Order: sequence, then C-alpha cells, then structure tokens
Amino acid sequence: MFDIIAFDADDTLWHNEILYNNAQDRLQELLVAYHLDGQVKEELFLTEMQNLHYYGYGIKGFALSMVETAVRITGGRIQGREILAIIDLAQEMVLAPVQLLDHVADVIPALSASYTLMLVTKGDLFDQERKIAQSGLASHFAYVEIVSEKSADVYRALLKKHRIGPRRFLMVGNSLRSDVLPVIALGGHAVHIPYRITWQHEAVSESDESQPDYVELEHIGLLPDFLQRIERQR
Amino acid sequence: MFDIIAFDADDTLWHNEILYNNAQDRLQELLVAYHLDGQVKEELFLTEMQNLHYYGYGIKGFALSMVETAVRITGGRIQGREILAIIDLAQEMVLAPVQLLDHVADVIPALSASYTLMLVTKGDLFDQERKIAQSGLASHFAYVEIVSEKSADVYRALLKKHRIGPRRFLMVGNSLRSDVLPVIALGGHAVHIPYRITWQHEAVSESDESQPDYVELEHIGLLPDFLQRIERQR
Repeated sequence: MFDIIAFDADDTLWHNEILYNNAQDRLQELLVAYHLDGQVKEELFLTEMQNLHYYGYGIKGFALSMVETAVRITGGRIQGREILAIIDLAQEMVLAPVQLLDHVADVIPALSASYTLMLVTKGDLFDQERKIAQSGLASHFAYVEIVSEKSADVYRALLKKHRIGPRRFLMVGNSLRSDVLPVIALGGHAVHIPYRITWQHEAVSESDESQPDYVELEHIGLLPDFLQRIERQR
Repeated sequence: MFDIIAFDADDTLWHNEILYNNAQDRLQELLVAYHLDGQVKEELFLTEMQNLHYYGYGIKGFALSMVETAVRITGGRIQGREILAIIDLAQEMVLAPVQLLDHVADVIPALSASYTLMLVTKGDLFDQERKIAQSGLASHFAYVEIVSEKSADVYRALLKKHRIGPRRFLMVGNSLRSDVLPVIALGGHAVHIPYRITWQHEAVSESDESQPDYVELEHIGLLPDFLQRIERQR
C-alpha cells in the first residue's frame, strides 16, 4: 500500500531536543553570576530565530547563537573562559552518543523487511551523517535524504525524485510542523508520534491543526500494528 | 564520451576562499591591540584543523574556530564587543553575494546543451543551497550533490547511485585533494583548474601528485575547446 515509509530522525528515532535543553540549562548555570534569572533561555530563543536565515538548523548555529546571546545579555561582561565553556558545550553536543528511542531498534529492522524505508532529516549535513552512521540503522534505509528545511515544496521534490505518488507515501515523525502538516498538504499520509519535548519553533498553534488528517501514536512500538490494521482495511 | 561532467562549486564556479581570507585579515586587524603579530592566522588554522571532526567544513564551524582562537590567543582578555564583531564577520560571509568566476556564466549554459552536468560540492548544506540558488546556474545542472567530504569512497557512492562507470565520468575542480586525486584513483577523469588561492588544508604536497593523470587548464573558459579536442581524438 505504501511505496515508501519515511521517518524523521531527531526525536523520532533518537533523542535530540534533550541535548539542546541540557545545553540551555548549563548556559543558564554558567551565567548565574550575572543575575539574569529566566532571561537566558528566552533571549537565546529570540537570537536563534533571528539567526535562522543565516545559519539554518543544527548545533553549530545554536552554538553561535549561545555565544552571541551570552555576550549581549551580560552587557559584554562575559569572561573569555565562559565563552570557551560555551564552545565546549557545543562540542559535547556534537560528540554525544546517539541514543535510540524505545522500540526503534526492533521496529525499524522489522519494517525494513516488508517496506522500503527512507530517512528524511533536516539540519546540518555533517552532524546528521555522523548520527545516522552511529545509530546502526543506516542499512535498513534504502534512501537517506538530508534537507535544509521540511516544507511542502521540499517533500514534493523528494516524491518527484523518487517517482512516488503522495498517496503511496507515509511519513512518520514527531513534528507536526515539519513531518506531518506539509505531507498532508500534498495528499500524503502521516503518523505523528509526539516526543516529550517540542522545540518552541516546531510547535504548532491549535488553529493550524484544526482539521487533523493524520494518525497520532503514543510511541513507535505501536507502528507495526497500526500498519497491519490499515493494510487489512484496504 | 562522458555520461556526466561534474563540477566543484566553491572556487571553481564562484569565489569562496577569498571570503575566508578577508575574514582572517579582518580578525587580525580586530585583535591588533593585543600585539599578536602573525600568530592569528597560524593559530586559527590549527584550531580549524582540530575542530574539523567536530564541525566539518563551512562558515559556521569557521566562525566558532575564530571565536575560540581569539579568546585563547588573547589569554581571555578579548572584549565582548570584539566577540560580537567576529560573529558579525561570519554573518557577512553568509550574506556575501555569490560572485561567479570569469567565463562561468557562458561555459555552464553552453555545456549543459550537450552534456549532463552535475554539481558536487562539499560543506554546509544550508549555505551551499543558498549559493546554488543565488548563482542562477541551478537549472543547468541535472544533479546537485552536496556531500560532507570528497573522498574516493564518496565519489564511488555517487557513481553507483547514478549508475555511471568511472571512465565515463569527468570531474572539474580547483582542488587536487578533493576534486582530482580521488576521482583519478577510481579510474575517472579530472580537469584541474587552479584558483589563485588554495586553502592550506586542500594543498597537496609534491609527492602526492607525482604521477599526474589529469589535465590542468588555466581557466574554465578553456574547457569547451578541451572537450571538443578529446571528443575528436576518440
């Protein structure tokens, strides 16, 4: 029924947002002497959003935004060793071992026996390739597509490239904004598997999801049963 | 005779290394009060090389290495406003308009009428996509491949993906290390078109190029004649 089942990677197959959250907590601790209270995370998010069109997604842009925010909100009083500590935070994020979400290590190999699987992930090419290699899952994906943004246009180009009709394409991911809504907009299918943290930028307001045309599953372990069920209905 | 002619992008189709050189000059000026003399560029290069396995290629990693180097070689005395000036340098690099090299605007459209062209560029996905879009050349390339490294393995995978024998593949680029030697190693063809500046990391020692099996052209404007000549010889 599906020519391709595509999976998002960050926070769908492995933990990711938690690394950013931890780095933000540690940035806040690092700047505790400047008495900025809750301001750090809020200002960092604003800086990230301003810089998105310079940097795109990923750890390196996040690191540059952390440095910029820290200098700005301390009124330039931040010390050199604190700047280096921020850069260390980023390098730790880059080196953090890939941690698969529960069930992923069973579900992906099992599904790859019956379906053609694709990985569609946005962000930094270098970092995403490292994570895919380290995940141990690469061999189960017939196609790996690393894109700079997940818009309807980008999905349309992917479907064209692989010569798949949207109705025979299923996308599975944790982000309504990036994995679900643009695919639905093209007439494709989507399964939403929320992660416990959603980056503010990926959050979708109520009105945007007023006519949900997708399925929500609690965790990826429920995906094989769901697929069996809809195959039977057809 | 060639199924695909592939082109490198940075410093083959448009100027790139000059942006990095200018940023290094400006970093050196920015730190002039610290009396570091020639140390800045040398230390920056060492930092970049140490960080290559964290960051890969591209402006964002370069920016992080500039910040790290500046803090370290000033013994942490660098001021907040100087850190922000370094980040501004990086943002200017990102926004710098794409400047095509001489002859490119004629040669690429002309060749695309007779050959299938591919762009093979390494570095930051987000930044490379921006440059390709801005170059006005995108429509002449049947395939665009943005890779994180240009090793023989990566070229082998590209040839396999596009089902081309290496002997029917021609790569054109300014870097012996990235565009010429790995392609020759696979049994492919390569044209080397040196750019006036070579990043130290891309430089190749004499011994590595002892048995050149490629052609060197002074500029890309000579490529169509060269192709006609070898097509006639066959």
